[in-house]
Amino acid sequence: MSPQSQPLKTRLKACAEDVAQKLERMLSEDPRGAEQYRPPRLLEAMRHGVLNGGKRIRPFLMIETARMLGYEHPGALRAACALECVHSYSLIHDDLPAMDDDALRRGKPTVHVAFDEATAILAGDSLLTMAFDIMADEKTHYKAEVRTELVRGLAQNAGIGGMAGGQSLDIASEGRSITEGEIRQLEQMKTGALLRFACEAGAMLAEANAKERAAVTRFGTIIGLAFQLADDLLDVTSTSAQLGKTAGKDQKAKKATLVSLHGIEATRAELNTLITEAESLLAPFGSQADTLTATARYIATRKN
Amino acid sequence: MSPQSQPLKTRLKACAEDVAQKLERMLSEDPRGAEQYRPPRLLEAMRHGVLNGGKRIRPFLMIETARMLGYEHPGALRAACALECVHSYSLIHDDLPAMDDDALRRGKPTVHVAFDEATAILAGDSLLTMAFDIMADEKTHYKAEVRTELVRGLAQNAGIGGMAGGQSLDIASEGRSITEGEIRQLEQMKTGALLRFACEAGAMLAEANAKERAAVTRFGTIIGLAFQLADDLLDVTSTSAQLGKTAGKDQKAKKATLVSLHGIEATRAELNTLITEAESLLAPFGSQADTLTATARYIATRKN
Repeated sequence: MSPQSQPLKTRLKACAEDVAQKLERMLSEDPRGAEQYRPPRLLEAMRHGVLNGGKRIRPFLMIETARMLGYEHPGALRAACALECVHSYSLIHDDLPAMDDDALRRGKPTVHVAFDEATAILAGDSLLTMAFDIMADEKTHYKAEVRTELVRGLAQNAGIGGMAGGQSLDIASEGRSITEGEIRQLEQMKTGALLRFACEAGAMLAEANAKERAAVTRFGTIIGLAFQLADDLLDVTSTSAQLGKTAGKDQKAKKATLVSLHGIEATRAELNTLITEAESLLAPFGSQADTLTATARYIATRKN
Repeated sequence: MSPQSQPLKTRLKACAEDVAQKLERMLSEDPRGAEQYRPPRLLEAMRHGVLNGGKRIRPFLMIETARMLGYEHPGALRAACALECVHSYSLIHDDLPAMDDDALRRGKPTVHVAFDEATAILAGDSLLTMAFDIMADEKTHYKAEVRTELVRGLAQNAGIGGMAGGQSLDIASEGRSITEGEIRQLEQMKTGALLRFACEAGAMLAEANAKERAAVTRFGTIIGLAFQLADDLLDVTSTSAQLGKTAGKDQKAKKATLVSLHGIEATRAELNTLITEAESLLAPFGSQADTLTATARYIATRKN
C-alpha cells in the first residue's frame, strides 16, 4: 500500500513521529552534533515545550502540500520542523502567567511550571530563533531564493502582523465586547496565519506556479478558519475529558467567539461551506489532493 | 571633510541617527507602508523598546566593517537595523520581572512598566521576528546566498548557543560562585556573540575572502571582550550619574565578574593587550581601518 492510499490517521501519525524524531535529533544533548555550547537546562526546557506529543498539523499540511505539488524531499521535513518550533514557542509564551496563565498543556505541566518563568521565556525565544536557522539552512532547500522566501513568510506570519499581533489583540479583547470583524481579525492572525503559511510554504518548497500557489494559500486560509471554528465548537460541545484540556473556557472567560455570536448550527453550516470550497479549490489536482481534502474534513469535524 | 576623516564621535552620532530614522520608518504607524495590520499598542511598545536613544554600537560595527572591506550600500543600514532589533528584543526580555526586573533603562520606564508584561513579551518576540524578515529581504543584499548566511549567523548568535543561552547562564549564576571559565563563557554568549557577529556580518555583506573574514571576526571577539571588561570596570569605578544607570549593581548582587576576580589594574592591563591585538589584526587594512581601531579604543575606555 503506497503512503498516499493509507487512511489519513495513519499518515498523520507517521508524520507526527517523523517530526518528533527530527526535532529530537535537532535538540539532542549529544554534543557531537552541536557546534555551539547549549546550556542543558534551557535545552531541556525547549525539549519539554516542543516534544509534547502534539498532532503536528502544521508540519503535515506543509509536507502534504509540497507532495501534492510534486515535491518530495527530506528538506520538507526540516522546514516542517521549523513551523513546529514556531508553534511551540507561541504556546510556551501564551501559557506564561502574564499571558493566559495556563499550568497544564496536553496533561503535562507547562514550561514555566516545570522549569521557571525566565527559562520559559528564553526557551520560547530560542525555539523561535532556531526556526529561522533551520529555514535558512541549505539542507532545507538547495535554492537560497526559496530559503529567503520561507524565512520572510515565516517572519511575517509569526510577528506583529501575524501570531504575536493576534495574541496581543486576544489579550486586549478580554472582558470587553468586540465585533465579529475584530474576532475574525484576531483569530486569523493568532491561529490562521501559521496554518495558512504551512500550506503556502509547501508551495514555496515545490516552487509552484502563481495559480497553484494562490489555490493552496486560499486552501490554507480555509484550514485556519475551519480549525478555529471547530475549536470554538468543541469548547461548548465537549467535556474536558474528551478535549484533554479544560472545556467551557471561552464561556467562563466571557470570551466572544463566532459560536457565541452565531450559535452552534450556523457555525456548523459555515464549516460545511468551507469544506465544499476547499474541495473545489483542490479539484484540479485530482487524486493528488485526496490527503489534503481529507485533512480539511478531519480538521472541521475533529473531536479533540 | 570625508566621513572617514571625521572624529569618531561625529561618525557614531551620525550612524545612530541613520539607524533611528530607518527604524522609525520601519515601525511607522503610517499604514501606507505596512502590508499587514499591526495592532497599534504592540507597535507602540516595539517603538518604545527600539527607539530608545541607544548608541547603536552594533549597527556601527557592522556598517564600518562592511565599509572597510569596500562595501557601501543602503542594504548595510537595513542589516544593521536588524541587529538593533535583536539587541532591543534582548533588553526588553532581560528587563522583565521574571528576569532582571529592571524598571528603568536610559532613564525611561522599561517596556513592561510603560505598557504591561504581556505586551513587553510580545514586543520582544515581534522585534526578534522582524529582524529575520529584514535580513532575508532582497533590499538588504541582492544575493540570496548572502541573506541566508546573515539569517543563519544572526539566529546562531541570538539563540540558545548565543544571547538567549548566555542570559540563561547569567540567571543560573546568580547567588552562587562560578569559575572564571564560566564567567567568560556566559559573557561571551550574552554580550560577546552579537558584537562579534556585527563585525562578521559586515564581512558577509562585503563578501570578503576567508582571511579578511577571519580577521574581522577575531576583531569582533575582541570588541565583545573589551566591551564587557569596560562595563564591569565602570560598574565599580563610576557613579550612577555618570553611567546613566545604577552603579555598583554587580557588587550588590554579589555577581562575580572578571574585575571582582582579578582587580581593576589587571583588568585595565587585559584591555590594553586586547586593543594592541585589535590594532595589529586590522593593520593590513591600512587607513581604511582607522574608524574600527578608534572604535575599539573608544569601547575600552568609554565612560558610560
